[in-house]
Amino acid sequence: MNTINKVTVVGTGVIGNGWIARFLAQGYDVVAFDPAEGAEDRTRQAVNHAWISLEQKGLAAGASKERLRFIDTIEEAVAEADFIQENVPEREELKKSVLETIDRYAKTDAIIGSSTSGIIPSTLQSGLQHPERFIVAHPFNPVYLLPLVEVVGGKSTDANVVKRACQFFDSIAMKPLVIHKEVDGHVADRLMEALWREALHLVNDGVATTEEIDTAIIYGAGLRWAQMGPFLTFHLAGGEQGMRHMLEQFGPALKLPWTKLEAPELTDELKEKVIEGCESYAGDESVADLEHKRNEFLVKLLDLVEEYWPESKSLNKN
Amino acid sequence: MNTINKVTVVGTGVIGNGWIARFLAQGYDVVAFDPAEGAEDRTRQAVNHAWISLEQKGLAAGASKERLRFIDTIEEAVAEADFIQENVPEREELKKSVLETIDRYAKTDAIIGSSTSGIIPSTLQSGLQHPERFIVAHPFNPVYLLPLVEVVGGKSTDANVVKRACQFFDSIAMKPLVIHKEVDGHVADRLMEALWREALHLVNDGVATTEEIDTAIIYGAGLRWAQMGPFLTFHLAGGEQGMRHMLEQFGPALKLPWTKLEAPELTDELKEKVIEGCESYAGDESVADLEHKRNEFLVKLLDLVEEYWPESKSLNKN
Repeated sequence: MNTINKVTVVGTGVIGNGWIARFLAQGYDVVAFDPAEGAEDRTRQAVNHAWISLEQKGLAAGASKERLRFIDTIEEAVAEADFIQENVPEREELKKSVLETIDRYAKTDAIIGSSTSGIIPSTLQSGLQHPERFIVAHPFNPVYLLPLVEVVGGKSTDANVVKRACQFFDSIAMKPLVIHKEVDGHVADRLMEALWREALHLVNDGVATTEEIDTAIIYGAGLRWAQMGPFLTFHLAGGEQGMRHMLEQFGPALKLPWTKLEAPELTDELKEKVIEGCESYAGDESVADLEHKRNEFLVKLLDLVEEYWPESKSLNKN
Repeated sequence: MNTINKVTVVGTGVIGNGWIARFLAQGYDVVAFDPAEGAEDRTRQAVNHAWISLEQKGLAAGASKERLRFIDTIEEAVAEADFIQENVPEREELKKSVLETIDRYAKTDAIIGSSTSGIIPSTLQSGLQHPERFIVAHPFNPVYLLPLVEVVGGKSTDANVVKRACQFFDSIAMKPLVIHKEVDGHVADRLMEALWREALHLVNDGVATTEEIDTAIIYGAGLRWAQMGPFLTFHLAGGEQGMRHMLEQFGPALKLPWTKLEAPELTDELKEKVIEGCESYAGDESVADLEHKRNEFLVKLLDLVEEYWPESKSLNKN
C-alpha cells in the first residue's frame, strides 16, 4: 500500500523535470524548488512537452499540469512533503549539503530520495540527522516514460523505508529494482558505462565512427535488449541446453581481447550462479517457448523501428 | 545491383540455420553442408520454427522451405554457389581448414563469408588461394530477423567484393555495416562483450543476480537502445546543446570507478569526434525533434514489452 501523498522535487534539470512530469501524470500535487533563474519556465515547458506522450500512455484520474507549484525557499518546499526527490548536479559536496538542508526541514517520516547516478547512499546519508529515511532512487531518462528506478539503501537506511519507496514507485507505474550491495554507479550505469567506455575506445582508436557504433547497437543487440537482458539473450543463443551450453561454447572467449575490459575468472561457482539464475528465471518456459515469444516481439519491434528510427542521411551506404 | 543467385551455407548450428531461413524467405535456392549426424533434420526443424515469424514479416515471391537441399560433400556443396557462408565452431584452425577447402572448390568469383564473432579476416584468409573474395560477414541471433551484419575485409580483400556483398545483404533486408579497421571482436561484439564482462563481475562480486541485471537493462537503457545507440542517447540527455553539454557534465565520470573498464583519455580531439559525430548524425533534427520521435516510439514500445516480456515469477517484488 502506498502511503505517499505529497511529493517535492528539488533540482529541476532534465531528470528533476522528468520526475515532475511523471508525478503529475500519476495524479499528484507536486511542489518544486530550484534556485536557478528561469527554472519554473523551463520546467513548465518540459512538462508540456512530456504531456503529449503521457496523454498517449493514459493519465491518472485528476492528473493535471496545473497541480505543479514552485516554492521560493527549500525550507518551505520540503516542509509538508511525504516524499522528496533530490536532483542537483552530480557533485558529492553539493548533494550532501542540499540533502542536509532537506533533512533539516522535512517531516521526520518523509522519505528522501536522491537521483545520483553514481554516489553510494552511505556516503550521501552520512551527514543527515535522520539518515534512516534516505535512499538512492536512480531513474533513467526520460524519467516520465522509462520504468526502471534503482533503489539502494545505505548502511543507516531503515529496511521499511526501502519497502515503502518501492510501493510508491510501483504505484506510479515504475519498476523499482532494489540493489542490495552499494557500489559506485549502482548496477545499470555500470553496465552502460562499460559499453560507453568501449565505444569511446573504438572512436579513439579509429575503428568506427559514433554513427557506425550506434548502428551496430540498434540493429543487433539493441533490438534484443528491449525485451531480454544479456543473460536471457545468451540463454536463448545456447539452443536447447540454454546458458549451460552457451558458457561451454563462449566461455573461452572471455580470455580473448574482444574488449578492453578484463573478465572475471569463470569459476565453477560463477558458472553455476549464471546457469541457475537463467534457469530459475526461465521457469517452466523452454528455450523454444521463449524463442517463440521473442520472435513475435521482434517482428513487431522491427516495424516500429522502421517507422521511428532517426535514420541518418549521412551513414555510408556501401 | 545484386549479382548473387545461388547460396551455400557450410555449418548448420544456430547461426548457419538462421542464415538458411533468411535466404529461403528471401526466395533463394539454398544448398547446405554439415557433416554432423542428424544435421538436416535439425535444420529443417529450425527453418519450420523460423518460418512462422518470416511469414509474419512477409516472404519474397517464390520463397519456399522446399528450396533447401543438403549435399553430402563440401566439394559439391560449394561448386556452383555465388555466395558461400561459413558457420563452423569458433576455433581458428578449424575455420581456416574449412575455408581452405571451400576456397579450393568454389568458383573463383564466388564470395566467401565467415560468421566469425571475433577472428579478423586477414587471419582467416591467409591460407586461401583466392583471398581477395573473402570477407567476415558477422550476423546476430536470430539471423532470420535481426538486420545487422558486420562486413569486414582483410588485407587481401578486394574492395569490390565488399561492395558486392553489401548489395547482396541489402537485397535480403539486412543492414550491412562495413567495418574499416580489423580488430578482434569487430565492433558490435566488443560493445556487447564489455557489457557482458561487467555483468559477470557484478554477479561474481555479489552485487546483483542475473535476473536483476537483465531487469536493469531492459527497463532502462535497453528500451532506448532499440531505437538509438549510446551516442545519440547521450546527445538527447544533454538537452538543447546535446552531446557538447553531456560531455561537459558527465566527462569527469570517466575517471570514476563506475565500471571495471578504464576509459580512454577524453582529449579535445576525441571530444570533437564524438560531438561532431552526433551533430552530423542528427542533421537538421534538433534535440527536441529527436525527443519527440523517441517518445512516440517509447510509448508504443512499452506496450509491446508489456505484452511480450518474459516476466519472471521469481523476481523479488519488494
